[in-house]
Parts: sequence; structure tokens; C-alpha cells
Amino acid sequence: MNIVEIIEKKKQKKELSKEEIDFFINNYTISKIPDYQAAALIMAIYLNGMTKQEITDFTISMAHSGDVLDLSDFGNVVDKHSTGGVGDKITLILMPIMAALGIPVAKMSGRGLGFTGGTADKIESIPGYRTDLSEDEFRNNVKEIGISLITQTANLAPADKKIYALRDTISCTDSIPLIASSIMSKKIAAGANKIVLDVTCGSGAFMKTKEDAIELSKTMKEIGELSGKEVTCIITKMDEPLGKTVGNKLEIIETIEALKGNMEEDIKEVVLTLGSYILKLAGKGENIQENKNSILECIASGNAYKKFIQLIEKQGGDISYVEDIQKLNKAKEMLNITKNISGYIKKIDAETIGKVACFLGAGRNKKEDKIDMEAGIVFNKKVGDYIEKEEIIAILYTNDIDKLKEAKQMIDGAIEISNNPIEKENMILEII
Amino acid sequence: MNIVEIIEKKKQKKELSKEEIDFFINNYTISKIPDYQAAALIMAIYLNGMTKQEITDFTISMAHSGDVLDLSDFGNVVDKHSTGGVGDKITLILMPIMAALGIPVAKMSGRGLGFTGGTADKIESIPGYRTDLSEDEFRNNVKEIGISLITQTANLAPADKKIYALRDTISCTDSIPLIASSIMSKKIAAGANKIVLDVTCGSGAFMKTKEDAIELSKTMKEIGELSGKEVTCIITKMDEPLGKTVGNKLEIIETIEALKGNMEEDIKEVVLTLGSYILKLAGKGENIQENKNSILECIASGNAYKKFIQLIEKQGGDISYVEDIQKLNKAKEMLNITKNISGYIKKIDAETIGKVACFLGAGRNKKEDKIDMEAGIVFNKKVGDYIEKEEIIAILYTNDIDKLKEAKQMIDGAIEISNNPIEKENMILEII
Repeated sequence: MNIVEIIEKKKQKKELSKEEIDFFINNYTISKIPDYQAAALIMAIYLNGMTKQEITDFTISMAHSGDVLDLSDFGNVVDKHSTGGVGDKITLILMPIMAALGIPVAKMSGRGLGFTGGTADKIESIPGYRTDLSEDEFRNNVKEIGISLITQTANLAPADKKIYALRDTISCTDSIPLIASSIMSKKIAAGANKIVLDVTCGSGAFMKTKEDAIELSKTMKEIGELSGKEVTCIITKMDEPLGKTVGNKLEIIETIEALKGNMEEDIKEVVLTLGSYILKLAGKGENIQENKNSILECIASGNAYKKFIQLIEKQGGDISYVEDIQKLNKAKEMLNITKNISGYIKKIDAETIGKVACFLGAGRNKKEDKIDMEAGIVFNKKVGDYIEKEEIIAILYTNDIDKLKEAKQMIDGAIEISNNPIEKENMILEII
Repeated sequence: MNIVEIIEKKKQKKELSKEEIDFFINNYTISKIPDYQAAALIMAIYLNGMTKQEITDFTISMAHSGDVLDLSDFGNVVDKHSTGGVGDKITLILMPIMAALGIPVAKMSGRGLGFTGGTADKIESIPGYRTDLSEDEFRNNVKEIGISLITQTANLAPADKKIYALRDTISCTDSIPLIASSIMSKKIAAGANKIVLDVTCGSGAFMKTKEDAIELSKTMKEIGELSGKEVTCIITKMDEPLGKTVGNKLEIIETIEALKGNMEEDIKEVVLTLGSYILKLAGKGENIQENKNSILECIASGNAYKKFIQLIEKQGGDISYVEDIQKLNKAKEMLNITKNISGYIKKIDAETIGKVACFLGAGRNKKEDKIDMEAGIVFNKKVGDYIEKEEIIAILYTNDIDKLKEAKQMIDGAIEISNNPIEKENMILEII
């Protein structure tokens, strides 16, 4: 077997065998296959596609290219993953709720790149919080308090890491088979046996259309079935940013408020739906409506908030910043965004907002970039809301005053006003 | 402009602009674009194709990536190129004839790789012959004796060299647009204004079918037209090896015999046809039949042979080896190839013969490999000939006795015998 023959086969649109896929993944992981041959193969896969069997073999091979966590001593472990969005703080709100309801949460989260943020960055807004626990500490915390939330410390799916970085440089990021196998390889390596996937869809997501989101969901569900993982995909709207904040520290503030029960409608819808399906997958209740009620009670009782405090404290965070959110500094510069007309907000384009937040300092364009934890955007209004002329729609936050002028220009076209009332749409598009 | 956008465009099957193609070629030549991005682009080009305009821009850009020779002070310079075959010594026979007929021959030839041989390797069989002249020496020889034959010493089309090597590692050699642009870029850089291309077709050629050979020919003719070069393509059969010999020194012996007038029918047909079209392109005669007669006269008069002697002497070769071909050593080991039946030879598979010759030592699998100048195969019989049981069809030559057994097994299946007479076919399939 050699890589040139494998490239030739895929170039001719033939199905690769499990052995051929393993040969590629294993040898590319240890750099025995150079980047240029991998690039040619990935482009051929992009253009000629993969069969369901190939996608599954590709995923499992990547999952086993590094460490594979065994979380079976915790029983049914449900992982939750989002395909990425703007203002997406669902993991931070939902995971303490799930833990408070008795589901073990052993969650590794990523950092932000491009216009989407990362959970690990956000939670580090709380001084002292450690995301870099060892595997032993991680397991211990799950055992003791039922929850741990860290960055990926184990060597999970290194093949995916290499292929993901390569895809970025050769314009092959937007491939559904490759996205599906990338996500699922990390989920399989991360050890949960049940997985709820929030497949975002819209301008602020990788999937721009519902059709693509459905295809991605079906592909991931199939990979799950063929690799013994129970998977539920929930397709959610991502046309405007989720909730009222975008940016690391700003989103933590919104998370704390949400856990106290002050939750935006769109966030509530996503949290309740995802949470209910997690409860169902974990065997904690077949009835979705009852599950939603359990979640609402868990928040109302203060148990969810208490679990969050417990998590922060356990991982070294200073809980005084949670108990008194005034202590969480805001950025030095604030600029109000208004319109010189009145009307109904028709659109707040999530992708542009994500890019503005990133530009203000909240995100990274390259992995090595440093981020400004305080930068971001707070929205006073959401799509469907009525605004008066010159009423404040949003506030830009940054520590770099030079960024404000360009950011304001960028955001201006992203917000559209209509004379006619705009109906608020459901956040949940489809459950697969 | 950046390479990721260019890859994206070709991935979407859009036409690249001249500026985008230049950006890629120029930056790849100086390694500012890494191999993996080039590999992804080449695979996308392979699978999504190029328009005529793109192919021409790609070719011209590669041609200008290094030195471009200016041969205009020699008037009409006609270059001859073959897309490669087994036993193909046409350049060595034809070029002295052309020079003897007053056409300036300034020819740079390649070395062999894989199952096809290279003119430069073959001519170095004559002790002392220098293929590595400087450009000044090269030009001087053309001025003084009307001919020079060297390897590529100038830095011609370095982009093509890099892309060719890359294509080999990513299974993208068999692309007609890429083959056409590779050949034409070198021809344009080599400075001739008229080009006759011998497009070989059959088992021993890169083009396996006549349709592919026609497509390649049309593509190269179009590139020529769009870049101001007059091009004639002659599609020739390459199902059995050309002439009676395969291997460097063996082919030189056949070349010398041919220039003395002892020419196999297949070689004669190709030499006369190619030569006639070269004469026509050079403005030395419109009538192909008359041109063929001129060539026959040139050989019969001894002028062609004399020109060859003059060339060898001028470039430092010991002409005593030409005048007495017995001095050209043969390999130590010789093994006869026979069949245990009588009948008509139906097939001598050129590709297999090329591989056997290479295996015996006559060729290189990698650029760095050393070759055995004396290794190769001599055929006593050609397709269509009748053989008695156990009559010698061919003789294997090598200096490595360990190779004989496997070589014999390899060659056995390449030669097929029929009970029924087999008609000899024309060598010239099409002129474009």
C-alpha cells in the first residue's frame, strides 16, 4: 500500500478501504506522509466525496490517532457540542444545569478562532479559573462535584488537528464529510457514549442553509450509529447572535444572569431543547416537555447557579467575581450604536457581528493571537424589537480606541430596520 | 491576491485570470507558496480542468519562470519533441539529417525516467561526448556546424520542473492540460519559433488512446497559436518498441546504422514524416512527398551520417566508436528470448519492454539512479514477422546476471504469437 495509489483511487472517485484510510491517517499523524500528499488527497476527497462507510472509517481512524478517554466508570456520559456560533454561551449555561440534575459532565471545550468564540476562553474571564487540569484532576472533579470543564489537555485526535489546520490553508473547510468526521472524531475520542449536537445554521454558522445543516446532522448521526454512539442533532438558527452579548467577559456576565433565571428568550429555547434531549439520552426522562419543566425548576431553585459556583471554586476560580459581577471589569472604551430612523429590527447579521467582535479584540485570526477578554458587543435590542430613532441598539466595547471607527462602519450594514413588524422566529429548526 | 482564494476559485470550477496564474507560478517557483498549497491547486486543476485560455496562461507563465532562450539570430529554428516512447531514437537520427539539409538544429534533450529513455543518456554512450555545454558553446556549435545537441543546461521553465516533480508524487501525471502545458512551456523557453511534436500513442506512451493523443495535440497546437509558435503534431503509434533496440548504447548502434541507410521500416516512416513537416515549417518545401525524397537523398548521399560524425567530434566525442561500432562494448550477459510455438508475432508490448529494459539497468526509477549504458534488448523480429518454434525473437543484455531470470519472466507475457498472419500497421495515425 502506498499513498500515491490511495490518491489515485480517490482521484478516480473510487471508495477507499478501511485499511487505506488507516494507512493515510496513521502515517500522516506521524508525518511519514508529507503535507503535499495529504493536501492532494483532501482536495480529491473534497471534490469527489466519500461514501458513508468511508466517512465513518475516516472518523474512527482520526479518533484513534491519539488518546481515547474511557469515561465508562461514570455510566452514561452525555457530551454536548455546538458547530459554532456568535454569542454562543450555551455550554456554559447548560452544563451546570445538567450536572445539577445528576448527569455527569466531563467536558473538554475549544478556544475561539475566526468569528466564533470558544467556551474555554470565556470561562477564563473569571480570575483563577484553571482550564488546564490533568486527566486525573478532571476525573476527580467529575467524581466529586459531578462536573468539570477544561480545554483539550489529552492528545485527542491529533490527526484531526493536523488535517483541520491543513484544510484551512487549502480552502477545504466547507466540506460536510470533512466537518462531520472532524467533529465526531473528537467526540469519540473524548469518551462520552451519548452526544447531543447543536448544529447551528445561518449567517453566523458554518452551515449557511438548512439543507446543509440537515445533511451534516444526518452524516454525524450515521457516523455515530456505525461507531456505537447515540447521537441527537438539534438544528438551531444562527442568523443573529445568541442572547445579548458577544465577547468573552461579556458572555460570562450573561451566563451568570441566565443561571440566575434572567435568560433571553432565544437562549432559553436552545437551553431547554438541548437540555431535554440530553436528559432523554441519559435515561432521565422520555418526555421532552417534562424534561423542560425539570430544567426550569432546577434554575428557579438556584441549584443550577450553585453548581456553577461549585465548578468555578473547584477549578480555582475566584467566586467573588461571580457573586458580584460588577467586579468583572468592562473595557475602557464604549461606543453606542444607533440608527437615525425608527422601526423594527429586521436583521442583526451574526457573521458580521462575530467579525466586529473579533476585530475589537474578542477573537483570534490566528491561533497565536492574544485576545482582549473585555472586548465585545452588548445588544440592548434583538431582531423583532421596535426602536426609536437614535435609540441605543448596541454598545461596542474595546480597550483599543483606534478600532472604534472601523468597527462602527462594519456594524452599520449588519443591522437592518424595517417599517413593518418583524415576527420573532423559532430557534429550533429541526431535530434529527 | 492570495493562494487560498485561488485554490477556492479553481475548487469551484471557475476560470483563473492570467494574474492569478502568474501569482501562483511565480510564488511557487521561489517556494513562497508551499508544496501543500500547490498540491491542492494541482489536484483541483486535475479534477476541474482548465479552459484554453487558462492552459495557455499557465504554459506561458511556466515558460517565463526562468531563462527564455532567444534563437532568433538563427532565423527559423524548428524544435522537435517526442512525448516519449520505448526505443525512441528518432531525435538522434532525424536531427543530423535536418542539419545536413540546412536547418539550424539547437536542441536540448532530456534524460530518461521510468520506462522511457532519454536522448541525452543515449548519446553519452559515445565516449567523450559532452552534453553539458555552456550556452555560448551551444550557440557557437549551431553557428559553425549547424547543429548542437545538449542537455538542458539553462534554467528553463523551473516552475515546470517543480510542478512536474510534485505531480508525480500526487498521482496527477495523466492530465492532458498539465502534460500539454509542461511540454509547451519547455519548448517556448527553449527558443524555437516552429515546433514539430511527435505525440506517441499506445501502450508504450503516456497517451494510451488515439482520442487522448488527438486531444493533447489540439491542446498543444492551441497553446502554440495563442503564444505565437507554429506547431505541427504528428501522432505516431507506440504499441511496440520503435526499431530493433531498447537501451542506450544499443540504440546508438541502431542510430548509426540508420544514418548509413539501414533503417527499420517503422523508424523510416516516422523519420520521413516528421522530417518532411519540419522542412515544411522551416519554409524549405511545401510538398511533403518531395521533402521525403530530399531526406532519402540526404541519407543515401552520406551527408546525414557525415553531419552526425561532425556533431560527435565537435562536442568532444571519440568518432572511432562511430566509425567502428564494434568498439561499442556490449553487456556481459546475453539471454535469448524464444517461444515454444511457431506463428506470427501479434504483439510486443512496448510498456512492458520499457520496464524490462529499465529493470535490466537501462533506465532510472528515480532521478538519482545510475544507469547501465550497455543494458537493454535487441529484437530480431517485429510485430507481423513469422517465427519458427524456438527461433530467437529478442536478446536481453545486462551486466547484472541476477536480473535475467525475472526479466525473462516479465518479457514472456509481453510477446504474443498468433496462428494467423498479422498485418503491419501504419506508424502515422494523424497529423494535426
